[in-house]
Amino acid sequence: MSRMSLIVQKFGGTSLSTPTRIRRGAERAVRAKANGRRVVLVVSAMGSATDQLVDLARQCCLDPPKRELDMLLTTGEQVSIALMAMAIHATGQEAISLTAAQLGLYTNSAHTRARIQSISRDRIDRELSHGKVVIVAGFQGVDAGGEITTLGRGASDTTATALAAVLGAELCEIYTDVDGVFTADPRLVPGARKIDEISYDAMLELAGAGAGIMHSRAVEFGKKYDVPIHVRSSLTEERGTMIMAETAGMEAISVRGVTLKEDLATVSLIGVPNTPGVAARIFAEIAGHNILVDDIVQNIYDGGTHATIGFSTDASAVAEARAVCSRLADQIGIESVEIDEDVSKVSAVGVGMRTHTGIAATMFDALAKAEINIENISTSEIVISCLVPRKDGTKALRYVHDAFGLGVDQPSGSNSAATA
Amino acid sequence: MSRMSLIVQKFGGTSLSTPTRIRRGAERAVRAKANGRRVVLVVSAMGSATDQLVDLARQCCLDPPKRELDMLLTTGEQVSIALMAMAIHATGQEAISLTAAQLGLYTNSAHTRARIQSISRDRIDRELSHGKVVIVAGFQGVDAGGEITTLGRGASDTTATALAAVLGAELCEIYTDVDGVFTADPRLVPGARKIDEISYDAMLELAGAGAGIMHSRAVEFGKKYDVPIHVRSSLTEERGTMIMAETAGMEAISVRGVTLKEDLATVSLIGVPNTPGVAARIFAEIAGHNILVDDIVQNIYDGGTHATIGFSTDASAVAEARAVCSRLADQIGIESVEIDEDVSKVSAVGVGMRTHTGIAATMFDALAKAEINIENISTSEIVISCLVPRKDGTKALRYVHDAFGLGVDQPSGSNSAATA
Repeated sequence: MSRMSLIVQKFGGTSLSTPTRIRRGAERAVRAKANGRRVVLVVSAMGSATDQLVDLARQCCLDPPKRELDMLLTTGEQVSIALMAMAIHATGQEAISLTAAQLGLYTNSAHTRARIQSISRDRIDRELSHGKVVIVAGFQGVDAGGEITTLGRGASDTTATALAAVLGAELCEIYTDVDGVFTADPRLVPGARKIDEISYDAMLELAGAGAGIMHSRAVEFGKKYDVPIHVRSSLTEERGTMIMAETAGMEAISVRGVTLKEDLATVSLIGVPNTPGVAARIFAEIAGHNILVDDIVQNIYDGGTHATIGFSTDASAVAEARAVCSRLADQIGIESVEIDEDVSKVSAVGVGMRTHTGIAATMFDALAKAEINIENISTSEIVISCLVPRKDGTKALRYVHDAFGLGVDQPSGSNSAATA
Repeated sequence: MSRMSLIVQKFGGTSLSTPTRIRRGAERAVRAKANGRRVVLVVSAMGSATDQLVDLARQCCLDPPKRELDMLLTTGEQVSIALMAMAIHATGQEAISLTAAQLGLYTNSAHTRARIQSISRDRIDRELSHGKVVIVAGFQGVDAGGEITTLGRGASDTTATALAAVLGAELCEIYTDVDGVFTADPRLVPGARKIDEISYDAMLELAGAGAGIMHSRAVEFGKKYDVPIHVRSSLTEERGTMIMAETAGMEAISVRGVTLKEDLATVSLIGVPNTPGVAARIFAEIAGHNILVDDIVQNIYDGGTHATIGFSTDASAVAEARAVCSRLADQIGIESVEIDEDVSKVSAVGVGMRTHTGIAATMFDALAKAEINIENISTSEIVISCLVPRKDGTKALRYVHDAFGLGVDQPSGSNSAATA
């Protein structure tokens, strides 16, 4: 028997906010099946269901145990899988919903931020072979002891691409409320343009640099197992953005998009004794308190005897970062700890940016024209980031977006001109 | 180590309709624990959550598959167990929530009306031995294949008494929004009085005869394993109604309560050939269509060659009952099928009613005084029921309640007088 091609379709909360939208999603799945494909759906919780559950939790307990939060929040996706199965049943097709425990999506036991360890394909294969559309609850997992876990907010994308990888899907479609991945957040930059194709790596940097459209881990699964990911609108039939392995056509365009990450803070440790192992000790301590560090910058002075070590982190982690660093200052003999709670990060992301000279210069020039002070710079193979005062974030984003010629109203040659 | 006594507390939907009420329930459980007891809670879905889920289901599919309905509806109780665990955590006590799958509450595979087959006590015992309050999702089960099942609407009571039986609890408390079991529905009979103690058997008849306060199967578990059940209000500290094995004190009072079951219909099969096996064939066919039959009455005529067979059923089943009986009429040679869709059933329930002469006469006399026509009579060891026109239901209930002297304003001797 020849194997029919398989597609994974993931529907986000806004695409499932009402029974009408759920039925529309069901019809999309049924059309894919009518086209001769085996179909696996991954669904999020309906609309704002998860937020409502979090709100209920807070009203019952100021500091809810994470195990119970997972028990609570996973009900949102369980509601969606059941309703989606019903909506497909209403079209005359057969469907079956599966929780993570039923399908065998195993994670470690780190409640609220669990990592997928294995996915069994037995149950899904069996149901597919019976001609059913299989509907899987996103976001959730189960540990070896049968405890219910979650993969972190927004991680239904990860469920989808991980399943697509395990099942050898030809495509993973991510249905959302936007038309695809844009050169910048269209709410902040009116001239932002939809990107037709983007490499896994560039998408990873966009996601990591603050483009909220997709979970980084989801893109990692796509990259690792080479599953093309199509991010598209659930409201239209338009083509969205294809995230895929790098192609020859992509190379010509260096800067693919710009992002803004707000609500950051910088922590500067001044006068750190520059002896081996000091930085390791500092960041081990910070990681031990689950403080996520965004970028790290170190400079030495006093003939190399002392250093200034700076890092950025979420503004929400400032209180804890301050406490941890103050203790470290006493223990290690650091002169002072300075914190700026009002910074945002503007990043330009592309492929092979280091091989295109002048990209950094273009970015700095744009910020200078906007009269915005750069507080910190970091670069990698495919991203350049500048920390700027929070109040200037959106303005910085627009100037950089324009400088790289990413907008719809730019003449077609301007992008290469900017990156020359 | 001496074993602490164990109590099962069950909270219904109205007792969990808001975070404030959930916290109040948590405090009650913590008080029971502070009194030296091991505590197992069983919770229903919050307030009208189940109705809202059913409504969502209907908007997605007119005839939702039962498996998916169970998948959907069990989320209501899962929300409640998580929130209750959080609320107990907020008091400083430890608690853990368990789904049916996690605790090992196994049922058969009859979705939406599954029967409990076994309950494992291993996980509960382990958590209790760690000093935790254990919170179990009511209403749900899991079959041998890991499919999620439900025990039928209102069956969280059954979960509670079944757990109490398996765990050897000294008491099962059912917290609800009424003060206990009443001699009649207080909304219909203003003079209705709370019953302090009632036997399992009388309670079973009350439940079966339409008193909505408790699921019959829940009382059956209490009876079979002799677990006293205390039905009481979650809003007060007042004693409610104790359902327990019959005691000497109960024998003096014959009629314990009266009930009204509305929305019934009678189906009369007239001119049925009175040959062996005919009734069996008729009711096998009716049962095969899942039409619940309430009471059956048969009379013979024409020198025993023909019979009239009548039965009552829910008004909602009339259309199907009519179709089934019409087919049977053709096949067996029944003269006609007559249906009355507008009847209600008034029942008087007590212990050993047959040994008290005059009870039936008192009931018929009360209905005669009320000028209500009796359409049908059925009696058992502890119940007498009369079918009356639906419009006369409440009036009949009040007259019968008064005739047996069950009201609060009756002189204390009137009950025995009525039953003499």
